[in-house]
Amino acid sequence: MTAIGHRKSALVIGAARSGKSRFAERLALGTGLLPVYIATAEARDDEMAARVAAHRADRAGRGWTTIEEPLDLADALALSAGVGQVVLADCLTLWLSNLIEAGRDPDTEASALAAAIAGAAGPIVLVTNEVGAGIVPINALARRFADAQGRLNQKIASAVSDVILVAAGQPLRLKPAPEVTL
Amino acid sequence: MTAIGHRKSALVIGAARSGKSRFAERLALGTGLLPVYIATAEARDDEMAARVAAHRADRAGRGWTTIEEPLDLADALALSAGVGQVVLADCLTLWLSNLIEAGRDPDTEASALAAAIAGAAGPIVLVTNEVGAGIVPINALARRFADAQGRLNQKIASAVSDVILVAAGQPLRLKPAPEVTL
Amino acid sequence: MTAIGHRKSALVIGAARSGKSRFAERLALGTGLLPVYIATAEARDDEMAARVAAHRADRAGRGWTTIEEPLDLADALALSAGVGQVVLADCLTLWLSNLIEAGRDPDTEASALAAAIAGAAGPIVLVTNEVGAGIVPINALARRFADAQGRLNQKIASAVSDVILVAAGQPLRLKPAPEVTL
Repeated sequence: MTAIGHRKSALVIGAARSGKSRFAERLALGTGLLPVYIATAEARDDEMAARVAAHRADRAGRGWTTIEEPLDLADALALSAGVGQVVLADCLTLWLSNLIEAGRDPDTEASALAAAIAGAAGPIVLVTNEVGAGIVPINALARRFADAQGRLNQKIASAVSDVILVAAGQPLRLKPAPEVTL
Repeated sequence: MTAIGHRKSALVIGAARSGKSRFAERLALGTGLLPVYIATAEARDDEMAARVAAHRADRAGRGWTTIEEPLDLADALALSAGVGQVVLADCLTLWLSNLIEAGRDPDTEASALAAAIAGAAGPIVLVTNEVGAGIVPINALARRFADAQGRLNQKIASAVSDVILVAAGQPLRLKPAPEVTL
Repeated sequence: MTAIGHRKSALVIGAARSGKSRFAERLALGTGLLPVYIATAEARDDEMAARVAAHRADRAGRGWTTIEEPLDLADALALSAGVGQVVLADCLTLWLSNLIEAGRDPDTEASALAAAIAGAAGPIVLVTNEVGAGIVPINALARRFADAQGRLNQKIASAVSDVILVAAGQPLRLKPAPEVTL
């Protein structure tokens, strides 16, 4: 899938607390367009509430419109991405967790999200976690989550024009890139 | 160790479910040689059996010869790598797990594998996991596995001509690369 | 923060057992300056003692001066970094663990370390772990550690002139790098 001009889209992937959200914000603001933030987080306990509040405070006063959408991300993207606007969806890991808890099929939802990205009228930035680079969890549920997250990351990486890895706050472009052959 | 022409060899490293196996297949098929697949997986329970079957289905009808070798990987490589053939060994993480369970010494086996790579008559692609980028496991056995995996990855990375990192299905070349100095 | 000439500083980040310490040593020795090693590890049990001893043996006979400083790393850096010397601090993950156990505030200490790096009279190399790329730990303490480690890594990455990712012993420069935009 090729993206041109205003149809550019990026997947920003990194470890927890790697600075990926902050970099994704910078990437979105760098377009100079009106920034719309789609938060997939739901504040269910004090720890989460504190994180959501801290992220909100970070964005406060910097002109972001915030939309909260824990489940229907494809629809929210389709509605938000418009001429003169840039949409940041943060993050796909909490979204996946919400989908699984709600009994929805992650692969079906990932396909719908990929289609929404392809059809969007403006640029989109999506944030996701790498969760598969530790020891394989003993817990079968955790293994299934890691599998679903990996499949989702691969599918969305195929759908976007740009993939950027972030480590210690430093971005590294993975796509587009020269072909790697033996 | 320098590799030239048909002696090229690659280590493909990535997180679980990062798309590293699929990329490794593409890398092997890109040589245009007859592809031989060495599977180190043993189907011991339903979850593993399902994964092995899915991977087999992925390769079905695409001309691969499959060899199953959970332990004697160096020998299998030496026997399989030949003129006009490309060998894909997938993956070193299951192999390491099999070695430890069988009471073999991982470092000795890694040295034998490195020697087999150096002596191979045709190109070789090996797939391995990064397992050390999560929180250090409380479990001493898991820590020892992560240590052994890391040492194995470093040793094989030294032995091959190419090292490629995969994240979200996107490859990134780590070797050969310009020297990094301060 | 820009570093010039002898004021260069590097953060080397990688998974456990990724070869990051060995690469960091090579980077420090490559300067041709007198190498000073600041070890943040404390040998508290047999496993740790074995690791510390193995690392010491690795450095033995190669001209390193070793300083052990589990807590006051900023001070140790300020005292050690001098004209004609290169300092290697290994590693920030054990340092963070020591700080938390001693009841010190990681963010305050990270700021002091960043200031010491900026004011150092000679080049500095620091080693740290990526610990956030596995499944989010169930354990709240482990989550808080991963958060603190991520914030520390970002802060030090901002303070140094060079950031280098290591996987399977292979270095990849993340900073300085061309700006990544959409």
